[in-house]
Amino acid sequence: MFSQTVEYALRAVVHLASEAPAPRTTDQIAAATLVPRAYLAKVLQSLAKSGVVQSQRGLHGGISLIKAPADLTILEVVNAVEPIQRIRTCPLGLAAHGVRLCPLHSRMDRALATVETALGNSTLAEVLAEPTESVPLCPYPGGVKSALRARSGPPAPTG
Amino acid sequence: MFSQTVEYALRAVVHLASEAPAPRTTDQIAAATLVPRAYLAKVLQSLAKSGVVQSQRGLHGGISLIKAPADLTILEVVNAVEPIQRIRTCPLGLAAHGVRLCPLHSRMDRALATVETALGNSTLAEVLAEPTESVPLCPYPGGVKSALRARSGPPAPTG
Repeated sequence: MFSQTVEYALRAVVHLASEAPAPRTTDQIAAATLVPRAYLAKVLQSLAKSGVVQSQRGLHGGISLIKAPADLTILEVVNAVEPIQRIRTCPLGLAAHGVRLCPLHSRMDRALATVETALGNSTLAEVLAEPTESVPLCPYPGGVKSALRARSGPPAPTG
Repeated sequence: MFSQTVEYALRAVVHLASEAPAPRTTDQIAAATLVPRAYLAKVLQSLAKSGVVQSQRGLHGGISLIKAPADLTILEVVNAVEPIQRIRTCPLGLAAHGVRLCPLHSRMDRALATVETALGNSTLAEVLAEPTESVPLCPYPGGVKSALRARSGPPAPTG
């Protein structure tokens, strides 16, 4: 139910949130998110149009989030690129139903509402702060710092 | 998040459930569901392939549900034409994540799980039995019987 575009938008925003408020270039985001550069450029355009990210030119320019990660929910990112289409009126166009959905369409709409609730309850800051061995976008269990610690070996004994 | 194909499949199945166990022709289903005939034929093919409906040739043939409406859930119909793709492994293919999803993808998957639960809890029989002014697929408030009653006027006074 989540398209490739939604998946890529979320990866890009998670990366930007992890670096916020510093801007990142499209190449940096592509490398961190494993998203093909051309596809990513289109997704970033959508996110800019919807007011999720902004783009700054210049030497230290790049793309950055407009809101702080603590104020941005997964739902806002999804809706920025492919809005969840709630069922507000009868899809058959039956005048007698109008906004009073039949039991089929009201059940379908309730299912969509549960998705909105689930995604609207999580901010990007929460996604990044959750203690986990699987850090978003990061190939190292426990995150980059843990990988660097492992690479440099245990601290030398002192005393 | 629900495609046109899913919407049409559900309408067709609701109509078949309302007539079950009698078979209906594609033309009859198209008329009842307001689905373009060619599109409907493809959707019915998918439903037949997935074992939701069966087709019988002959004078009194047509398309009918394989299960009783009380045993068929909305989720089964959705999954028959466009399965809800749960996120089972890391979409980035990160070996370290594998089946231990990161907080982003586990939240996305939990949202998909809520959809499965919402749709899996309703059978077609429940959809049709729910008391409502908006009867599924029916343009008359209160259903066809109520419309027929209204058309023939109140019963003549007796005695």
